[in-house]
Amino acid sequence: MKPAPHPKRELPIGIFDSGIGGLTVVRQIHHLLPNEDIIYLGDTARVPYGTKAPSTVIRFACEDLQFLTQQNVKAVVVACNTVSAWALPTLEKQFPLPIMGVILPGAQTALAESTGHRIGVIGTHSTIRSRAYERAMIGLDPLAQVFAQACPLLVPLVEEGWINHRATKLILQEYLAPLLRRKIDALVLGCTHYPLLKTAIRQTIGPKIRLVDSAESCARFVRERLTQLELLSHRRRLGAIQPFLTDETTQFDGYAARFLGVPAEPAWRVELTTATQPTALPQT
Amino acid sequence: MKPAPHPKRELPIGIFDSGIGGLTVVRQIHHLLPNEDIIYLGDTARVPYGTKAPSTVIRFACEDLQFLTQQNVKAVVVACNTVSAWALPTLEKQFPLPIMGVILPGAQTALAESTGHRIGVIGTHSTIRSRAYERAMIGLDPLAQVFAQACPLLVPLVEEGWINHRATKLILQEYLAPLLRRKIDALVLGCTHYPLLKTAIRQTIGPKIRLVDSAESCARFVRERLTQLELLSHRRRLGAIQPFLTDETTQFDGYAARFLGVPAEPAWRVELTTATQPTALPQT
Repeated sequence: MKPAPHPKRELPIGIFDSGIGGLTVVRQIHHLLPNEDIIYLGDTARVPYGTKAPSTVIRFACEDLQFLTQQNVKAVVVACNTVSAWALPTLEKQFPLPIMGVILPGAQTALAESTGHRIGVIGTHSTIRSRAYERAMIGLDPLAQVFAQACPLLVPLVEEGWINHRATKLILQEYLAPLLRRKIDALVLGCTHYPLLKTAIRQTIGPKIRLVDSAESCARFVRERLTQLELLSHRRRLGAIQPFLTDETTQFDGYAARFLGVPAEPAWRVELTTATQPTALPQT
Repeated sequence: MKPAPHPKRELPIGIFDSGIGGLTVVRQIHHLLPNEDIIYLGDTARVPYGTKAPSTVIRFACEDLQFLTQQNVKAVVVACNTVSAWALPTLEKQFPLPIMGVILPGAQTALAESTGHRIGVIGTHSTIRSRAYERAMIGLDPLAQVFAQACPLLVPLVEEGWINHRATKLILQEYLAPLLRRKIDALVLGCTHYPLLKTAIRQTIGPKIRLVDSAESCARFVRERLTQLELLSHRRRLGAIQPFLTDETTQFDGYAARFLGVPAEPAWRVELTTATQPTALPQT
């Protein structure tokens, strides 16, 4: 007698990001839902997305999601603020499975935790330009005041490992000063790299402002949504985390230790083929 | 009577880089060879290359060069230290036209200008890891002493426009201190973004150390090589600079003004198609 096929709820959750920052989201989801198998795709060959144009971000995101659906995942988490900001409607239109981003959960948490609803948001150029957090928060509370600040140097600083460096503190002071002048009472870390700078950010903003980690709120959101959809795993064993990367995987173990904090399977490289077309289009 | 076909020497020079940093090389070549038409390709959708693995850099470089050959260029300049460091032998094997990089010219100039042959090199992680400058200089002078330092934060600082910022000076001090302790007498700017930091670097290293701009030395090298190959244009009109980018071109004008310093044609976007293959390969 053949074994019964796996019920859909036992399929893995697919999570993707432009690079390795999304591992902070994997960490929180694994912490909250330890039995879930996770397939992670980091598009490390084309990272970062946060400095690139919306049309390019959307194109890359569709390719990433196509890979994950080929791995037969039950749902997808967009563990990248830039992709969540620009590509979510397109992805939801093109792929028939539950897709969750980091923006809406972060916006909800910020509004729940802020008393005066004067909320600061920091992120990449592209995330801030999208005004996605602002739109989400004002959609939930029309009286919310949202102040946004692009912080493009923070991702390279985290990747360089300069978490507590004097230059990092100087740069944080400069980026955060305009938000502090606006008397914000909550600050959304709108980029998956920023949780690694929590200590330095806390030192810069003082003890009173609430820090909203979009990775944490995303994990809670995923648990709720999968519960509603009856897609939570019923297994009792610890879930496996399988990373796929588009660049070579040699440096991955070091990053994984820092961003993920728990063991993962050895990373696999995904072969992507890029065909250059001879046609060039003028941009209008 | 039909006009005679263009002689080969009147075809454009193709120049490419991972992004817009290579425009500093375009600037120097245009300055030295003002009659030459130039086609520039910046792979801005996948920038940067300097943080990525050699195999990925080589793959991207082959695709870039394929595009330029489709534009019917007479020669190609690799205006990217990372690509010059890793991909030049592969490119020369695969493409039957003259291909010039930035490493050999920079190494020659450093040796010519340094009296004690104690030479510092700064560049991206990937360029420094390749030890390409070291190999080139020791090949030319076995007694040369080369000291290398990866400076991954400098490219994001330049792109953020923080050319004279206090944080930039702090970061430069930290990166350059080990080289100064080695008593270098010349410093190679081994990344096409770094010429924009010349003033801040000069302030950090003092007046005595020779600064070698690999963009300048590359331009002189290109003139020599094209003269030898009888490929210099005989025209008298000013050459045109036609940029192609793989990301959207909207922000290009601002960058062009800063990096290029002379007018260019409006940038065109090159459509690249990327197909995700369902197969994933384990990395050994």
